[in-house]
Amino acid sequence: MTTLESTESTTRSVQALRPTNGSGVRRYLPFLDWLVHYRRQDLVGDGMAGVIVAIMLVPQGMAYALLAGLPPQVGLYASILPLVIYGLLGSSRVLAVGPVALVSLLTASAISPLAGQSTALYVQLALILALLSGLIQLILGVARLGFIVNFLSHPVISGFTSAAAIVIAVSQLKHLLGISVPRFEHFYQTLYYAAQHMSEINWSTLVIGVGSVVVLIYFKYQLGDQLKNRGIAERWVVPFTKSAPLVVVVAGVLAVLLFGLYESAGVKVVGEVPAGLPPLTIPMFDPELWRSLLPMALTISLVGYMESISVAKSLASKRRQKIDANQELVGLGAANLGAAFSGGYPVTGGISRSVVNFSAGANTGLASIITAGLIALTVLFLTPLIYFLPKAVLAAIIMVAVLGLIDVVTLRHVWHYNKADAASLIITFFAVLLVSVEAGIVIGVIASLLLFLWRTSRPHVAVVGRLGDSETYRNVLRYEVLTCSKVVAIRVDESLYFANTKYLEDTILTAISDHPEVDHLVLIGSAINFIDSSALETLESLVVELRDAGVTLHLSDIKGPVLDRLKKTHFIEHLGAEHIHLSTHDAMIAIGCA
Amino acid sequence: MTTLESTESTTRSVQALRPTNGSGVRRYLPFLDWLVHYRRQDLVGDGMAGVIVAIMLVPQGMAYALLAGLPPQVGLYASILPLVIYGLLGSSRVLAVGPVALVSLLTASAISPLAGQSTALYVQLALILALLSGLIQLILGVARLGFIVNFLSHPVISGFTSAAAIVIAVSQLKHLLGISVPRFEHFYQTLYYAAQHMSEINWSTLVIGVGSVVVLIYFKYQLGDQLKNRGIAERWVVPFTKSAPLVVVVAGVLAVLLFGLYESAGVKVVGEVPAGLPPLTIPMFDPELWRSLLPMALTISLVGYMESISVAKSLASKRRQKIDANQELVGLGAANLGAAFSGGYPVTGGISRSVVNFSAGANTGLASIITAGLIALTVLFLTPLIYFLPKAVLAAIIMVAVLGLIDVVTLRHVWHYNKADAASLIITFFAVLLVSVEAGIVIGVIASLLLFLWRTSRPHVAVVGRLGDSETYRNVLRYEVLTCSKVVAIRVDESLYFANTKYLEDTILTAISDHPEVDHLVLIGSAINFIDSSALETLESLVVELRDAGVTLHLSDIKGPVLDRLKKTHFIEHLGAEHIHLSTHDAMIAIGCA
Repeated sequence: MTTLESTESTTRSVQALRPTNGSGVRRYLPFLDWLVHYRRQDLVGDGMAGVIVAIMLVPQGMAYALLAGLPPQVGLYASILPLVIYGLLGSSRVLAVGPVALVSLLTASAISPLAGQSTALYVQLALILALLSGLIQLILGVARLGFIVNFLSHPVISGFTSAAAIVIAVSQLKHLLGISVPRFEHFYQTLYYAAQHMSEINWSTLVIGVGSVVVLIYFKYQLGDQLKNRGIAERWVVPFTKSAPLVVVVAGVLAVLLFGLYESAGVKVVGEVPAGLPPLTIPMFDPELWRSLLPMALTISLVGYMESISVAKSLASKRRQKIDANQELVGLGAANLGAAFSGGYPVTGGISRSVVNFSAGANTGLASIITAGLIALTVLFLTPLIYFLPKAVLAAIIMVAVLGLIDVVTLRHVWHYNKADAASLIITFFAVLLVSVEAGIVIGVIASLLLFLWRTSRPHVAVVGRLGDSETYRNVLRYEVLTCSKVVAIRVDESLYFANTKYLEDTILTAISDHPEVDHLVLIGSAINFIDSSALETLESLVVELRDAGVTLHLSDIKGPVLDRLKKTHFIEHLGAEHIHLSTHDAMIAIGCA
Repeated sequence: MTTLESTESTTRSVQALRPTNGSGVRRYLPFLDWLVHYRRQDLVGDGMAGVIVAIMLVPQGMAYALLAGLPPQVGLYASILPLVIYGLLGSSRVLAVGPVALVSLLTASAISPLAGQSTALYVQLALILALLSGLIQLILGVARLGFIVNFLSHPVISGFTSAAAIVIAVSQLKHLLGISVPRFEHFYQTLYYAAQHMSEINWSTLVIGVGSVVVLIYFKYQLGDQLKNRGIAERWVVPFTKSAPLVVVVAGVLAVLLFGLYESAGVKVVGEVPAGLPPLTIPMFDPELWRSLLPMALTISLVGYMESISVAKSLASKRRQKIDANQELVGLGAANLGAAFSGGYPVTGGISRSVVNFSAGANTGLASIITAGLIALTVLFLTPLIYFLPKAVLAAIIMVAVLGLIDVVTLRHVWHYNKADAASLIITFFAVLLVSVEAGIVIGVIASLLLFLWRTSRPHVAVVGRLGDSETYRNVLRYEVLTCSKVVAIRVDESLYFANTKYLEDTILTAISDHPEVDHLVLIGSAINFIDSSALETLESLVVELRDAGVTLHLSDIKGPVLDRLKKTHFIEHLGAEHIHLSTHDAMIAIGCA
């Protein structure tokens, strides 16, 4: 042991754990890191991953565009330029950006009330939404305000995602059943309407849809194990299992063509998709529209960032890489701007595609760029095939994707551990289902903050005593401790601020009247992290009230920063400087109890 | 010292400090306490106080009704039945209930946008507002929810009151100058308009108004000292100085009558006030109106309660009496219902009149009842005199009353002590001035809560070392302490919850990479009052990240309630039960550093 040893900087593996913020131009242009030193052996992984993600993304992009209420090509356009931009500017090397379910749902909620029946306006509004979300993310990233997503607690995200998954699944029912359902505000209205119109089910559509669901589930949950049991090499399992959306798309198109289902059986198909690269689009400037889309753009930018950063971080930590939260905002923001100017709609990092990208071996942003190239080839040459793709197949892809988002595990864990967290999860869940998607997340955040405030307004308080011969003082109700008849020592387990000063005052006065024999009250500050001015006022009046009752107030274990502030006031003179002690034990010695 | 001694209940003076909640019927009918044992010697003080408060209340009641935009008799009606009811049901024996400035201002803000030009509707809306405020207070009181006013911090109240005082003073300018000013939304519009129309000043009105202001200020700040210096007994000083409003009222009426100012000089007078006791009024039931008044009724009930409870508590503590916060809500709520059914408008306990009531010797609720009786006599017999009372005199009474509410002292104190508290004061102040009175207080409360959350999201963190030979560990930056090269001990001064888990993670990883030589990290939980499920997840992943980097995580000083929760999860197995230590010193011994 040495006194205050200087902390020498020696290199060591833990250095890698430090958040790497890079410096200068490298921080803002992360691709310089991998492009300059690109190793040939990285190309295999990047190429493989790029291809597999593209195979998933072609059907998913169209499906999520459908979910957002947009024409299918918009989903493909949103899968080209944004991916190139993110590949260059994103701080994660494996995040697969593009259309995702949650953001598509939020896009639909934002736009459909404003667009009415006009598809042209709908597409325009999606561009504005992408532009605004991108700008918000860029601004937050440059201003280094990424921390604000910390106010989205895990239970709130879990409740939001589960409920949104249900809303999404229900919204796709009409495509799966072949019923035409008007747009309702609430998912239960859609369900009720569908239940009443069961007789209108189009059986060909239902067969294609349910068949697709079965195939997708089989690929997702069964095929992997079966392939492994048959001795197929691990590296080939991922490409096979993840090609499920492509398989159902091809099967769906073939079914329509072979059985001529379009004409005869009323199976709704995607229809005309223009061939060619994404157009250059300039989002229109209309202050009124911008203002009405702003709240939703804020929600999309935060929820999208949330989803993105959590998967990026969890994948990066597996390879001991670090994610720069603010650069991540810059990368996503720029990708959204790319979407706005190339006929797309809001994008973010998708969970499932990112995991696939990672396990297929993506090493650098090049994987994303390869994916983008393949999507570009698709829109150039494959759109005629898409014409006959049944919408039921896309609906099946969406439903199976969101099925996995319903998160019961977190609720079970949280319920056991902390009822307040469980409450905020459940409140968010029902608010999303019963009020609306966007109000749901706001209500959830507010509820979680209020529950936190409620908790801090009624702090845990312990009367403590000495543990054997030690200098440690613990709760009399939990430990066999020694107490002294003329003093009561109280530890308040919370910072003192306006919401709990009244509670503190009542607690202390009650403690004194419960222990009428005491002459001294020691208030232990080990858990008091600050004292605001309302609480300081209460303490000042407590000093007088206790003094009048013949009890001396002592403070112990007051933390440095708290004491520094108190020294700026007259409180210490008022209390008497001799009544402030470094530790509870010191206070006991001074009082003559130890 | 004995182990866990039983706390015998011996009586002692401190018993009186315990919040008295009474029991059974007495708690809800506090007058049973004083009425049954009424002592003749209490009558002198009650009578004296009742008379002096009545002398203040006649002009103030009319003035505040004017401020609320109501006919003067409404202020008098609100000073009869509500006072009798509060005298019987209130838990304070000295609180003087009736019309007050802040609540009158809030009443005007609530009603004037809805009532248009109709005085009849205006009066009706005031009744509804009183009814709703009363119901809210009753419900909060019976449900024992009085604690919710704790979320109004002292700086927010101070900022609100100062700004409201300015708004009120400016609203009375027109009466003082004799200019007619249309109703503006913002005080600065009123000021600007008045400045532009200075040429229209009615000089007779101005002389009466400014003369009244001078007399009132003289009585308030000078007369008391002069009387004392001339040897007048203390008990006569209060009645003299507090009769100022009556003096200016009488002088104003005489001036109008003697100089015939009404006709010739355009001095606006109160005019016809109907003689007779308050009418029985039934607030009309209109769901639409009720709904639009509800937010303001909530504000009035909370702000009114706030003002009332703070003065009631401070006066009660001077006589070692206790206020039951919930019974206080019941008393005020019932008083407001009384106002609603007797032609009044919302009332609460006034600060200045309560202080006068107290110092004039009020002992029981009888003082309030005596005041009410005198006001009743006034409306029965004295209304003809009120006809000639200039409105400028009432405006002067309001202005001088609110002048004393502008609170610079609190700002100065708070600015020194805590910039966040100062910020919430200043935000509230400007929000009230520039946005609106009711939005101002909401913005202030939200700002104060957000500042608290912001603070808890970036907790103070200290690396600690051993203080000499003791078992006390303190901040290495503040104390000469001993540290050990293979361990870094970190104290996080905040509960761990969703808003600060990311910050915690960064801090710990940075500490480790700053101290590359360490093998152990001790996280000291003495200031951690709870760990929510988001933080628990972060801790779980930290265990793994640190283990991979060759560092063992230890926890010490974990509080009982926190440990209890952790035991419900798999976290302790995950961490290793042997890595949880009772104290930092124990952890150091286990690691081999002490």
